[in-house]
Amino acid sequence: MNDRSLRGLVSSLGGVANGFPREDGFDITVASEVMAAFCLADSVADLEKRLARIIVAETRDRKPVTAADLKASGAMTVLLKDALQPNLVQTLEGNPAFVHGGPFANIAHGCNSLIATKSALSLGDFVVTEAGFGADLGAEKFLDIKCRIGGLEPAAVVIVATLRALKMHGGVAKADLGQPNIASLRAGFVNLARHIANIRKYGLEPVVAINHFSADSAEEEAELIRLVREEANAEAFLCKHWAEGGKGAEVLAHRVAEIAESGSARFQPLYPDAMPLADKMRTIAREIYGAADIAVTPDAAAKLARFTEMGFGHLPVCVAKTQTSFSADPKLLGAPSGHIVPVRDAVLSAGAGFVVMICGDILRMPGLPREPAAERIHLTADGVVEGLF
Amino acid sequence: MNDRSLRGLVSSLGGVANGFPREDGFDITVASEVMAAFCLADSVADLEKRLARIIVAETRDRKPVTAADLKASGAMTVLLKDALQPNLVQTLEGNPAFVHGGPFANIAHGCNSLIATKSALSLGDFVVTEAGFGADLGAEKFLDIKCRIGGLEPAAVVIVATLRALKMHGGVAKADLGQPNIASLRAGFVNLARHIANIRKYGLEPVVAINHFSADSAEEEAELIRLVREEANAEAFLCKHWAEGGKGAEVLAHRVAEIAESGSARFQPLYPDAMPLADKMRTIAREIYGAADIAVTPDAAAKLARFTEMGFGHLPVCVAKTQTSFSADPKLLGAPSGHIVPVRDAVLSAGAGFVVMICGDILRMPGLPREPAAERIHLTADGVVEGLF
Amino acid sequence: MNDRSLRGLVSSLGGVANGFPREDGFDITVASEVMAAFCLADSVADLEKRLARIIVAETRDRKPVTAADLKASGAMTVLLKDALQPNLVQTLEGNPAFVHGGPFANIAHGCNSLIATKSALSLGDFVVTEAGFGADLGAEKFLDIKCRIGGLEPAAVVIVATLRALKMHGGVAKADLGQPNIASLRAGFVNLARHIANIRKYGLEPVVAINHFSADSAEEEAELIRLVREEANAEAFLCKHWAEGGKGAEVLAHRVAEIAESGSARFQPLYPDAMPLADKMRTIAREIYGAADIAVTPDAAAKLARFTEMGFGHLPVCVAKTQTSFSADPKLLGAPSGHIVPVRDAVLSAGAGFVVMICGDILRMPGLPREPAAERIHLTADGVVEGLF
Amino acid sequence: MNDRSLRGLVSSLGGVANGFPREDGFDITVASEVMAAFCLADSVADLEKRLARIIVAETRDRKPVTAADLKASGAMTVLLKDALQPNLVQTLEGNPAFVHGGPFANIAHGCNSLIATKSALSLGDFVVTEAGFGADLGAEKFLDIKCRIGGLEPAAVVIVATLRALKMHGGVAKADLGQPNIASLRAGFVNLARHIANIRKYGLEPVVAINHFSADSAEEEAELIRLVREEANAEAFLCKHWAEGGKGAEVLAHRVAEIAESGSARFQPLYPDAMPLADKMRTIAREIYGAADIAVTPDAAAKLARFTEMGFGHLPVCVAKTQTSFSADPKLLGAPSGHIVPVRDAVLSAGAGFVVMICGDILRMPGLPREPAAERIHLTADGVVEGLF
Repeated sequence: MNDRSLRGLVSSLGGVANGFPREDGFDITVASEVMAAFCLADSVADLEKRLARIIVAETRDRKPVTAADLKASGAMTVLLKDALQPNLVQTLEGNPAFVHGGPFANIAHGCNSLIATKSALSLGDFVVTEAGFGADLGAEKFLDIKCRIGGLEPAAVVIVATLRALKMHGGVAKADLGQPNIASLRAGFVNLARHIANIRKYGLEPVVAINHFSADSAEEEAELIRLVREEANAEAFLCKHWAEGGKGAEVLAHRVAEIAESGSARFQPLYPDAMPLADKMRTIAREIYGAADIAVTPDAAAKLARFTEMGFGHLPVCVAKTQTSFSADPKLLGAPSGHIVPVRDAVLSAGAGFVVMICGDILRMPGLPREPAAERIHLTADGVVEGLF
Repeated sequence: MNDRSLRGLVSSLGGVANGFPREDGFDITVASEVMAAFCLADSVADLEKRLARIIVAETRDRKPVTAADLKASGAMTVLLKDALQPNLVQTLEGNPAFVHGGPFANIAHGCNSLIATKSALSLGDFVVTEAGFGADLGAEKFLDIKCRIGGLEPAAVVIVATLRALKMHGGVAKADLGQPNIASLRAGFVNLARHIANIRKYGLEPVVAINHFSADSAEEEAELIRLVREEANAEAFLCKHWAEGGKGAEVLAHRVAEIAESGSARFQPLYPDAMPLADKMRTIAREIYGAADIAVTPDAAAKLARFTEMGFGHLPVCVAKTQTSFSADPKLLGAPSGHIVPVRDAVLSAGAGFVVMICGDILRMPGLPREPAAERIHLTADGVVEGLF
Repeated sequence: MNDRSLRGLVSSLGGVANGFPREDGFDITVASEVMAAFCLADSVADLEKRLARIIVAETRDRKPVTAADLKASGAMTVLLKDALQPNLVQTLEGNPAFVHGGPFANIAHGCNSLIATKSALSLGDFVVTEAGFGADLGAEKFLDIKCRIGGLEPAAVVIVATLRALKMHGGVAKADLGQPNIASLRAGFVNLARHIANIRKYGLEPVVAINHFSADSAEEEAELIRLVREEANAEAFLCKHWAEGGKGAEVLAHRVAEIAESGSARFQPLYPDAMPLADKMRTIAREIYGAADIAVTPDAAAKLARFTEMGFGHLPVCVAKTQTSFSADPKLLGAPSGHIVPVRDAVLSAGAGFVVMICGDILRMPGLPREPAAERIHLTADGVVEGLF
Repeated sequence: MNDRSLRGLVSSLGGVANGFPREDGFDITVASEVMAAFCLADSVADLEKRLARIIVAETRDRKPVTAADLKASGAMTVLLKDALQPNLVQTLEGNPAFVHGGPFANIAHGCNSLIATKSALSLGDFVVTEAGFGADLGAEKFLDIKCRIGGLEPAAVVIVATLRALKMHGGVAKADLGQPNIASLRAGFVNLARHIANIRKYGLEPVVAINHFSADSAEEEAELIRLVREEANAEAFLCKHWAEGGKGAEVLAHRVAEIAESGSARFQPLYPDAMPLADKMRTIAREIYGAADIAVTPDAAAKLARFTEMGFGHLPVCVAKTQTSFSADPKLLGAPSGHIVPVRDAVLSAGAGFVVMICGDILRMPGLPREPAAERIHLTADGVVEGLF
């Protein structure tokens, strides 16, 4: 199966017994609103409520049709009831970890399940959550969507940085990232400085973890620590966990624990529930992306008005945007300002509980590589599966 | 999901990144050639060979493209390797039973897996296989396809009959089948007599099991036993296993065991491998269905010629036909003769190892009922699933 | 435009503003029921009535939706009002001829317009109508459909025969038709004999026109005239109009005029209006095709029952069948008998006024040749169009 | 036929004989690039060249496939050769007028044919061309596309204004436009002032024609004439041609003739051919629309780069944008400035000879009204067509 062929299709062909022809498509599981609702539910009962609210169609007079209207939410909940139990695994060093739920970070909020986080919080002294992509996407969604909906209050934030990424933001071509380049590092540091400033807008004080690569130069690392301290007034720690395991990040860990226990965090989301949807987007664009404004297409504006009229104006917004720039243009590096963030479209995820603002492409069904792994997989005469890796 | 909407579709829409648009459709698992190949494989290695031979497309110059050409058969085999282990269950009375594999009886041969049957034969003294629908379909396919491919030699055959079905073949309307009607029973007996005669053409001597319904009249049952004896020169046994369990069929069981152990069976399939495909179909039509001949459409004839040219002329044929008549017309009851069996189309199942002769409708994706069971399924507050039955 | 791409399509894609997606297709003008209705109308008012009756869809409770229901028949009539005037042209020898209307001979009745024929009858002493294909198709439809609906009474019939075609019916390969072969001519004569016998069933006495080819042998021609006379008790005339113009067919013309003026014709269609639809088809199959019977698929039978219930049981039937055989099998030459004519499907042309019986393929949109003529058409610098022929 | 169902479709369904399935759609004639090429051609030979250059597809390695590659341009030219003759009609007062060609003003340049204009110039002393929509669209395309390609040099420009439109730009609701409202007229005048300033950027001095509506107040009209004179330093004339025919615009006509004959025009297009495509768009956005900048989506930017690489960077650009605002937002009235014009997509019309910049919706197939006119059209018994108007 080459899944990409299922991205867009016309179904119900072949006559009336097969239903009314319609344009449709398949999404990969993690791009489904079911996955997002699953990850934001705090109980089985809450999951059923969220599933019930998922809008799957509209009537001819444009009223929403929900999974509940189709009497589907009961059976959907039954199918998911075992999956909702968070699965505990362990790291190579024996630390407990929950790996549970994986909503796409473009069409959804990109965080693991609330139930896993809450379970972890009831079991451990410290719980670390990874929120991927740039902090303008991962951290923003974690803080404004998951923490808001789940009532979570982070006690500390770590921003992970690499010399390579900062030099790229300073203008170095990909092929040259392995070469020391202090000037470009300084130029690209504006990107990290903006992330640091952004996190403070949530009432949180971040520390920086420099993810050490074996080819990194000590001089550059020292310079980055200095820049963080002198220009952003924050702390940075060199972390060698890739090479040395937990020991390599021990200093950072102790410092983060200290911050967390200090009670200094004053977490608050970036915008209140009551703010109109477009203003929420504008707030993120201005405060986090450094933009001058947003440009909402008439279509998108009409949808936002409609979602508000339907009673969903209080939901947080979930931005679909490139992760390689603060702007919507993947090539605009560093810390751009004054740009306009185009909002091309808006999608209501009534079950998950947010409104997706389309500022970039959304792909709900990834394609296979040119040589799919399946081509190499086979069973030997001894019953051993080969070719999986 | 209302599956019927997936019966016919156009996929790969939305631009070149999604592939070339094509007409396609989904089949339910049991209608897939994969299921048929799975059930006719006698080992994992044989399964892989059958999967590899499945034809999924044609090149522009009309050469077949197989799963092996797509390098898919290795991964397919890995996916199925655990499923290929037959699953042993038990009946209410504790008898061991394999329930393993379920190819559709129209597009495929409708029998459980060869591996289950062979496993059972190596474990038990007697193995009973149920081959559903009328014996013109179920038994014919079991004997001509499964036994041929698997090298099985049945030692005895039981034909199951009911008073209701025979009276229906005698012309009684469905609503009136509960009333005693000796005349119609006699009229409909020609249907059973034909089945008895048919089984003898395989070198096997059948006995008849009369499946007792609580409303059946003793007089009719006695008459049927008499008819079987006097007009078909065979034995019939009244069986009350529905009401009494194994005890209710004990007499039959002893008689069948006796026959099986007598060594009287001289099994041979109805037609040899070497017979041309159309002649195989004609042989079944004349010998089993009582038809005068077959009428093959030019399209179907061209396909049969092509399959033969491709080297598949030696395969057995698998007839897709209504189960309510010996003919292709569902309303032609009793034991019709002189009719023409229309062969509208032909499908090559190169992986499973047979050629399907389309003499009736084939539905590869059943629809949901008007009120799908899913509407009633839900999870109670105590975590109990309700509404499954 | 490569028209064949429009044979089958799904339209109304792209959102609700474009309507409900549906499976559809384009027909070439001459395959449209509009053309058939146009050709069977005897006035503008009658045309509007026929257009109004054309069924274009069904409601959800399966009631027919007509062009009148769509309020389209008025505008359709306006579009066609000028086209309905028959266009008078002349032959190379200056004879007047109407070339007006051209319904396909498979999905429709294949005759020119009734209005042209009636206009010709009011203007000339003799009117000759060409009804193409074999007389089992062309003449049958002309007599049973056009003459029935238009109240026409032919006074004489000419069957055109060629040595080549008769030798082909006698088993000669296409490449060898140029060689004299008296034995094969005799063998193939059964085909012509059947056509002669068929025409007599309509109360008409046919004469045979032997269409002379320059390579034909005089011996064969003499033999054919003898066969017609002695074995079919009819007259045959050697016609050289291809080489000599009207003069080459003068003897035939005088004889036909004589027959027409003799008043000997006793025309009656093959079956009465009141005969059930399937029986009409069976009558044609037995009387004209020499078949033993027809085999109607359950689908087609259900449609015929429905058409009758809708009040269209009195319509004549229009057979879609190969023109190369009396049977439905293009390769069954000569004068086959005892065959079964399969009726795969049935189509109601309520506007035209007949029921199409599908006994062969129907193509409503021909394809372009490998090198379309359009590739050679261009305009010279002097404004002359080149490449049309 | 409800044409909107043809806007989007999947064609070539039904099997290999019908071609490869593809997504396609129908355009109304006036939205076809053929119409635009037709209107910009200056001879039959030039038309053939333009048709030959029309790009209809891409090869797998993304090389353009033109009508010439399909050997279609010769036949296309033959089909259009008679249509290319401009058709001379007359006005109610007997003035000669050419009505010839009508490319859509969004997907194309919206002007009549160059051949008609050149014919008129060779026949008359003065030729008036109507370029519809707001002058930011109609005049801009006439001047930058048609005049550029055709080598035309306008001698004078008339901007048509109405009190109603200016009051609407001043904030009056549609329902209240009939009421005198001097304050709003003054507020909305900025829109007219911008159009006047825009035309001067082409080296042309416009006069304003106030299209008198019977309900217009004399006070407002006087005020508008004053505003044009004092604030825009231009002349305005009250025109009553709707009520009085040519006589009602006589004063304007004499003044325009005077200007035309004065030789004061120094026409030059807004941007040179050599300017890069995006800069051409930016120039129009800034100079004509008053925008701060344009925002080109990455997709559109990639296409512009590709068109340039293919050798089409010298073409003029044709903007698809709303006609109700200088911006891309239909509700932004008056004379907005500082806005960003979004360029969502770009389309190469290689045959017509321009690149379409998509800054708004493009509909290539209009829909029928709720009650199509066809429903009322019919033919009376006397052969009269009714319901056309």
